[in-house]
Amino acid sequence: MSTTQTVTEQTVTEVTNTEALEHPFIQELIRQVRSEDSYGFYRNWTNELMLKPFILSRQDKRKISVDGDVEPNTKGRIQLFYRAIAALIEKETGLLSQVVIDLSHEGFGWSLVFSGRLLLVARTLRDAQRFGFDSFEKLAAEGEKLTKSGVELAKRYPEVGNL
Amino acid sequence: MSTTQTVTEQTVTEVTNTEALEHPFIQELIRQVRSEDSYGFYRNWTNELMLKPFILSRQDKRKISVDGDVEPNTKGRIQLFYRAIAALIEKETGLLSQVVIDLSHEGFGWSLVFSGRLLLVARTLRDAQRFGFDSFEKLAAEGEKLTKSGVELAKRYPEVGNL
Repeated sequence: MSTTQTVTEQTVTEVTNTEALEHPFIQELIRQVRSEDSYGFYRNWTNELMLKPFILSRQDKRKISVDGDVEPNTKGRIQLFYRAIAALIEKETGLLSQVVIDLSHEGFGWSLVFSGRLLLVARTLRDAQRFGFDSFEKLAAEGEKLTKSGVELAKRYPEVGNL
Repeated sequence: MSTTQTVTEQTVTEVTNTEALEHPFIQELIRQVRSEDSYGFYRNWTNELMLKPFILSRQDKRKISVDGDVEPNTKGRIQLFYRAIAALIEKETGLLSQVVIDLSHEGFGWSLVFSGRLLLVARTLRDAQRFGFDSFEKLAAEGEKLTKSGVELAKRYPEVGNL
């Protein structure tokens, strides 16, 4: 009984992940990670396995200390997340943008995406040591939301975005 | 002869510094440094001595290695320089702004001052280990220039600055 249940649950999760992995934001994130992978470290990894570190349950997060600096790998993932947003905004609007992650104060800081003099995304970061999402769906939804609002701003203030 | 000449030169320098120290930008920079000085470390220092580390000759700069990370004190001075600009823009326009210094790649990075979704100052940093100015006049001139262009932007796009 117990074994059957586990198998079923696992199957359900897999189906959901497969769908979520097709989401345009996740697809862009995959492109970003693979384009940085110049040594072919992830060459034989599935997309899901490669993006796994972006997914953290509440329990996973609790295990990560928020004292001290943010780990380089975590900072790298934050960079990649915002770079995927920047790339999608560019595809939609043609605006080339810069990503700036400022993590000066032990997990506190800013993540910014800007083009010309326009800030397309401006978010404060807190406890960045625990950067991660409950599920691939949440990751996709958050990325999509930030992309959308960036695109709207770019369309509303094209002059500032092109300065 | 030689002694007299040295004395004269020194006097000239002092006069110039005194004038430059009265410049509104330098005055704001002094306020920023003193407001951060919660332990009273600089209490008995003259303004000129306190700001001295902002002044680097070409020779001074050459002595500083650009390999490796930027020293915390240097990063602090970069912060203070842009905070003085932010404070002066606020006085002129009423816009509260944030200063973000991103020095991720060994002396390379961005310094940003923004308000709402408007970037009032956006500069790339290079060899930030050598951050400094030839003279107090140059320091004042550079600060004033960046403040002015920030104020102009704020007045041109008030809607974006207030988002």
